[in-house]
Amino acid sequence: METKIKLFITGGTIDKKYNELDGSLGFHQTHFPAMLSQARNAASVTLDIILMKDSLEMNDTDRALICQKCLECEETLILISHGTDTMVETGKFLSQSLKGKTVVLFGAMIPYSFSTNTDALFNFGFALAAVQLAPSGVFIAMNGKLFNWDTVTKNKQKGVFQTVENA
Amino acid sequence: METKIKLFITGGTIDKKYNELDGSLGFHQTHFPAMLSQARNAASVTLDIILMKDSLEMNDTDRALICQKCLECEETLILISHGTDTMVETGKFLSQSLKGKTVVLFGAMIPYSFSTNTDALFNFGFALAAVQLAPSGVFIAMNGKLFNWDTVTKNKQKGVFQTVENA
Amino acid sequence: METKIKLFITGGTIDKKYNELDGSLGFHQTHFPAMLSQARNAASVTLDIILMKDSLEMNDTDRALICQKCLECEETLILISHGTDTMVETGKFLSQSLKGKTVVLFGAMIPYSFSTNTDALFNFGFALAAVQLAPSGVFIAMNGKLFNWDTVTKNKQKGVFQTVENA
Amino acid sequence: METKIKLFITGGTIDKKYNELDGSLGFHQTHFPAMLSQARNAASVTLDIILMKDSLEMNDTDRALICQKCLECEETLILISHGTDTMVETGKFLSQSLKGKTVVLFGAMIPYSFSTNTDALFNFGFALAAVQLAPSGVFIAMNGKLFNWDTVTKNKQKGVFQTVENA
Repeated sequence: METKIKLFITGGTIDKKYNELDGSLGFHQTHFPAMLSQARNAASVTLDIILMKDSLEMNDTDRALICQKCLECEETLILISHGTDTMVETGKFLSQSLKGKTVVLFGAMIPYSFSTNTDALFNFGFALAAVQLAPSGVFIAMNGKLFNWDTVTKNKQKGVFQTVENA
Repeated sequence: METKIKLFITGGTIDKKYNELDGSLGFHQTHFPAMLSQARNAASVTLDIILMKDSLEMNDTDRALICQKCLECEETLILISHGTDTMVETGKFLSQSLKGKTVVLFGAMIPYSFSTNTDALFNFGFALAAVQLAPSGVFIAMNGKLFNWDTVTKNKQKGVFQTVENA
Repeated sequence: METKIKLFITGGTIDKKYNELDGSLGFHQTHFPAMLSQARNAASVTLDIILMKDSLEMNDTDRALICQKCLECEETLILISHGTDTMVETGKFLSQSLKGKTVVLFGAMIPYSFSTNTDALFNFGFALAAVQLAPSGVFIAMNGKLFNWDTVTKNKQKGVFQTVENA
Repeated sequence: METKIKLFITGGTIDKKYNELDGSLGFHQTHFPAMLSQARNAASVTLDIILMKDSLEMNDTDRALICQKCLECEETLILISHGTDTMVETGKFLSQSLKGKTVVLFGAMIPYSFSTNTDALFNFGFALAAVQLAPSGVFIAMNGKLFNWDTVTKNKQKGVFQTVENA
């Protein structure tokens, strides 16, 4: 009785890679297969790449696409890797349409590919447990805490997610 | 309404360090402060070092001490870092006495200090979410899954934890 | 009869650090003390921070300062950590004034602080041997080869240093 | 006029790998192709695996084989990766037969595969420069210094190589 989990990949710092030729940070292959392997994961997780975008560059067309994918997939347990800057906005957008599914958005402050000091694997592990144990709803999993989409904001000065009262 | 979490440290591969003078693997300082920092953790976690032992060297005196600490601490949410080899034995021992607390045992196949290919942070993140979301009971959190103490075994040939029927 | 070596630090990718709050790459503390420690270095090396600049932002005032420091220091064996983009220009500048000293410029394509896939320590080790064994002159140490300043260029499409005929 | 370099691989800590199933350190594939790639090496280096042994387990039959390989290869510039414990013994053995070649033995205190705190790449870079610049002879390249085979010993309490007077 093992419930299937869908991981929708949308980009964000967690999946960025340093380009040594021009010093930029961008996207190539997703690193999630490597992360699942490093985790020695035995849970049933299927990957699906929707986008590879910095979340500052996401718009509602992108969010509508993510939402549609969440609605259409057979899984009721959904992880979404996402840039931290507009993770809450996407959470809010999804909450308007998704009922009866457990959706957990997560990301990282340091790319997995940097290795040193990256929070990527910790956040991924945290989110994977959260999606298996939380009730239906849309959540943000960052900084060792699970937040409801409507009671969290990213504190950009400190680079952490914090609880706020409902908007 | 943030519930306090206690992390009891007992050793295991997760906290081992390579001794370059003699090529051995042993214990020095626990790495959990560094892990919490790398995780950018904001949950309320207090550390307590009970032991620093390879779990193959644990005996029931050690397990009784761990159990006593779990009973006496004020927290109802308890994480225990532990070697993987006898993690299930400790889980079984604790289940006999602990009621009304959520206890999650976790560890790693590769020390956190090795950095390359370590599952340490992923497992720690997973366990931290599990202890906040699971009901009362004693659990093993490994390989991306949360197991009840009485339906899991470590498959030593494969180095993974797997579900078994109740003993 | 151990000759003293001076390491002049001028910045470059080798010493950059990722800023997780804004996603930029910049300079904080130099990482060379950590690199010497990780190398388990026993050679006599003294550090001196002249600049912490991306070499695309260096100008001849900066180069004149580096040159002055090289002339004034008592050491005849000099290492210079430097950005790769204008390392050859600085080499040329120094060659006009420095006689009777062995000067080796080196850097990296990936910051030491990224850990994964960084060439920083390899290049530093290579340069440290080169400065102890090469004759007087001004050299570039990159990609496992020691180049005279006037027969090397950085191939920016490939991100490697290559021999060219004298300008 | 680029001189070819031969890298003879004999094992040692530098090439060890942690076995997560039984907690042991042993040998699988050599990591030198990965190290050359990470170094972005452009020098002409050919690899040849002679042995994959801990140098405490080496005997004179092994040393005779290494020596034979050094004599027979066409290259005059030879690197030998080797365990640090008996690196000097092998250096002495080789010095008795090898004339007119530059032979540099090197290794590491921490395996390359551990990533964190490894001296592997630094030592490899150092040795690669040394073999291209040193005169004929047999040398030990460790701790940022190039030692003649007959004036060095490994200080096992400190884990470093130090100059001694000729035996």
